[in-house]
Amino acid sequence: MTKNRKVAFAGATLLLMVWCTKGYWTADGNERVRDRLSMAYNDDRGKGIPINLSSEAKAAFEHRERIINSLKLEISKLEKGCPSNKLEKDSQLPKIYAITPTYKRPVQKAELTRLSHTLMLVPNLHWVIVEDAEKKSELVANLLARTGMPYTHLHAVTPATWKIKPKEAWYNKPRGVLQRNAALAWLRANVRSDEEGVVYFADDDNAYALEVFDEMRYVKTVGVWPVGLVGGLMVERPKVNAEGKVVGWLTVWSPNRPFAIDMAGFAVNLKLFMSKPEGKFKNEVQKGYQESEFLRHFVTSLDDVEPKAENCTKVYVWHTRTENPPLREEIRLKKEAKPPSDLRIEV
Amino acid sequence: MTKNRKVAFAGATLLLMVWCTKGYWTADGNERVRDRLSMAYNDDRGKGIPINLSSEAKAAFEHRERIINSLKLEISKLEKGCPSNKLEKDSQLPKIYAITPTYKRPVQKAELTRLSHTLMLVPNLHWVIVEDAEKKSELVANLLARTGMPYTHLHAVTPATWKIKPKEAWYNKPRGVLQRNAALAWLRANVRSDEEGVVYFADDDNAYALEVFDEMRYVKTVGVWPVGLVGGLMVERPKVNAEGKVVGWLTVWSPNRPFAIDMAGFAVNLKLFMSKPEGKFKNEVQKGYQESEFLRHFVTSLDDVEPKAENCTKVYVWHTRTENPPLREEIRLKKEAKPPSDLRIEV
Repeated sequence: MTKNRKVAFAGATLLLMVWCTKGYWTADGNERVRDRLSMAYNDDRGKGIPINLSSEAKAAFEHRERIINSLKLEISKLEKGCPSNKLEKDSQLPKIYAITPTYKRPVQKAELTRLSHTLMLVPNLHWVIVEDAEKKSELVANLLARTGMPYTHLHAVTPATWKIKPKEAWYNKPRGVLQRNAALAWLRANVRSDEEGVVYFADDDNAYALEVFDEMRYVKTVGVWPVGLVGGLMVERPKVNAEGKVVGWLTVWSPNRPFAIDMAGFAVNLKLFMSKPEGKFKNEVQKGYQESEFLRHFVTSLDDVEPKAENCTKVYVWHTRTENPPLREEIRLKKEAKPPSDLRIEV
Repeated sequence: MTKNRKVAFAGATLLLMVWCTKGYWTADGNERVRDRLSMAYNDDRGKGIPINLSSEAKAAFEHRERIINSLKLEISKLEKGCPSNKLEKDSQLPKIYAITPTYKRPVQKAELTRLSHTLMLVPNLHWVIVEDAEKKSELVANLLARTGMPYTHLHAVTPATWKIKPKEAWYNKPRGVLQRNAALAWLRANVRSDEEGVVYFADDDNAYALEVFDEMRYVKTVGVWPVGLVGGLMVERPKVNAEGKVVGWLTVWSPNRPFAIDMAGFAVNLKLFMSKPEGKFKNEVQKGYQESEFLRHFVTSLDDVEPKAENCTKVYVWHTRTENPPLREEIRLKKEAKPPSDLRIEV
């Protein structure tokens, strides 16, 4: 072989090697991009911008946020073309155990249906649903089966003395205490104590942005964030100082509670939860102190609490309440001894 | 070569050929299974069981339904492992144009967020959202961009004379008329007149099961189905006779309207819609007659109406209404000249 030929041959061999391993290199490259994005995401989200920014700084920040959003969208589109990767990657995320107490009422199926759609979009989420009933209902069982997602279906009945009476205000007695505790007992009996994840209470009438699940997934102690449309305000939220520490609560109603936060506004790290078997809810608790009663088992000072949602400046969950529908014609049908409109029909 | 060797060689060649083309054969096999399932689905859904079945027959039917559901779940799991196929298949489904009028209010973002999660789960759906506003808002624009789904963002302002006054009952004036008409005008200007699909009005406060989209997708004229929690009843629904024909309306309030049905209870075939450019809504219409005013352009008799949701025996959509949150502390802050809780925060 001449020297030129040797060079050409070596070059061709090199090209061939590169071509043969390109799958490896591009996959690796993607992994690296993804790791960097995911690190940036996990590290930077909690540490948001200070609240009093100039309008230019805010605009620059929002521009960056839009870019991040479009990158995430692009990644999710790429993943759609490569789903086995996505499924495997999802299963490696810390798991979210979302606990939902529920009870029979006219809007129950409607509420659980739209909540299930939100949860179906969240990767690696296990739904623990607990009915306040003597036994599990067909309605809830069928609804859960149709979601195709991982779930646990439980029931625990509230004794008559703790039930809210027909004309009693809804906030007069604690709600969902025994149901949430049943879910917590199930977790303690069924989850590995070293599993990565969080515990979250997702009531069936709230509305949730998908971002709230991204935020809570990496909580190491107790994570907290704003809740919209609660306590007579547009938003109640943790007070965060310039160093990014939670120092109090921006609420009007009873801001001096140890944790002046709605049930939808926090998540507890799973290992921390598993290490404190006494952490649960109680019926005999002053109005508005359920969250504090539960959380005192896991954090003794606000220093240990992690502010999420860009230093608690973003609203990713809303304490919506659905109207009890006025079933006046149903009442009239009953008076006239006529069958109800939903005879043999599940609504 | 000996005879044995020839046989072995021929056998090996055949095996190799089969192996090389197995992608073709299995793909084809899947297609056939899928086509059969899809035909069964499209053909059988409307023609449900009669209403008065014995309990054994009902149990047998429900058993079959469960099997169908688990098969569909199995298929969707298989498709998750093969997403490019799914995306291509989805794009061949008749398209759903879902029209949502919306307006600024405390619960707007919460409502649109949870509705977007439902719509994100529906294949080949195009969301047309119309704000009752002088211009398009950042809130809605950003929310739509985050969904990653196809959408059109419009606005049309209701003139002051047609706006509901602060203490006026919500049903006193028609709502969403100009907004729905703006969406219809957009469709007429932008959709191919031979496109396969349907037009559906999806208000932002209702709750939708995914099944309602499967039902409406193949409507050839005007499809109708039950709506839960409306008209003072658990369910209002079309009256269907033993031959599977719509013959009236099972409502208490004003059952003699030409179409005594809620906006959430029907869809119009897209080609039929495109062929009747005069079909739209009017402000000057008697209370409860908006649906009839619109639909009279597309069907002249109930004979042309298609009952869906198993002969109108299933409830896949609920007319839920979200409470206007009591913002009493916000009002107090204002009286005390303090800043609102959501200063510089989008709720």
